Amino acid sequence: MSGLVKKECSFYFLRMARVSQEHLDARRRQILDGAARCFSRNGFHATSMQDVLREVNLSAGAVYRYFSGKDELITAIVTEVLGRIREAFEEAARHTPPPMPDVLVGRVMTQVLGAGGTGKYGLTWEGEESFPRLMIQVWTETLRDGELSAVLREGFDSVRDAWVTVVEGYQEAGVMRADIPAEHVARTLIAATQGFAVQQALFGASPGEVLQDGLRGLMSMVTPR
Amino acid sequence: MSGLVKKECSFYFLRMARVSQEHLDARRRQILDGAARCFSRNGFHATSMQDVLREVNLSAGAVYRYFSGKDELITAIVTEVLGRIREAFEEAARHTPPPMPDVLVGRVMTQVLGAGGTGKYGLTWEGEESFPRLMIQVWTETLRDGELSAVLREGFDSVRDAWVTVVEGYQEAGVMRADIPAEHVARTLIAATQGFAVQQALFGASPGEVLQDGLRGLMSMVTPR
Repeated sequence: MSGLVKKECSFYFLRMARVSQEHLDARRRQILDGAARCFSRNGFHATSMQDVLREVNLSAGAVYRYFSGKDELITAIVTEVLGRIREAFEEAARHTPPPMPDVLVGRVMTQVLGAGGTGKYGLTWEGEESFPRLMIQVWTETLRDGELSAVLREGFDSVRDAWVTVVEGYQEAGVMRADIPAEHVARTLIAATQGFAVQQALFGASPGEVLQDGLRGLMSMVTPR
Repeated sequence: MSGLVKKECSFYFLRMARVSQEHLDARRRQILDGAARCFSRNGFHATSMQDVLREVNLSAGAVYRYFSGKDELITAIVTEVLGRIREAFEEAARHTPPPMPDVLVGRVMTQVLGAGGTGKYGLTWEGEESFPRLMIQVWTETLRDGELSAVLREGFDSVRDAWVTVVEGYQEAGVMRADIPAEHVARTLIAATQGFAVQQALFGASPGEVLQDGLRGLMSMVTPR
């Protein structure tokens, strides 16, 4: 083989490998999106792997190559969503002072929960309630599934740690009293978004401005310091 | 029958009726408490009416006299809990200005979610996570049960209305900026307690002070007005 041909072959195989990885990623994405739609529409328990196969229009062989079953699908979805929430807060913590809670929460909601939101943030949702509906089903599932519980715990801890850094940023910049454990504020802010998701799941979508206004109202309170 | 005997008989029957109503109430209470324990321990779906009968140590006849089945039990529990939460906020709204959110939330948590809390507030819970665990199961159940959904919606609306009155009290007293819809602040405060319950259910009980501190932190923020 001449040097030139050898070089061209390497190039060809490299291209093949890259396309192939892109293809694998796209396929994985397609399956996760379809599974998320099924779960949020019909519930985790009422969804079978058959439903997921139909939704993504792939053969069992094609799907099981990526995920061994529903448990792995839900774990992958949860890991991905929590990872993205964490990244959004980590990004915010790099500013001094970090964006105020109402701004930050609005940004993360748009990125992660946005109606049919896609692009950068992967998972797509059908309708605005579909992500919150999936969330509360995952919580219930967590009560009886130790492995999922561990995944959720780890994800929650990392989101909380990222929020703690943001809250410490507020305290260092003097925009929040510094004698309150940053972790307690972080947990309360996460709680507000979790609870807001509950309300969306149960009573229908409402604009993120509701939560942002509410936080602004609390932040405006006149309190003895 | 002489006048005296007649009078004594009426007295006797009145006493009988009263004791009987007390007995009925106590029995109803006993069944609801037992059912709540079963549901929060094993989940709503995994609990059978047989489990409830065993838990309360009563015959099927005795239990079905009060409740036709699991659906009626969960509806009764939800109605009762939401009614109590609403009462606590209505009571608070009578003060000018109402107690600050951190104080109020703490009071309601103690009254409604308190570990093994009983007495005035009826339902007793086994362990601190048991009420939050039941809550998230009820939410998931609500996604597929229209009747329960209606009960929850009505209860949520009444709790929200009571909170709105409290928030309007803050605004009228000048301790919160008045240009924010009171309903949005009310929903955010409810969301924070709902989300805190989620954290308790998933990751174990933690003291209510966490949420109270977090609210105090937010309330202390320096914001442009």
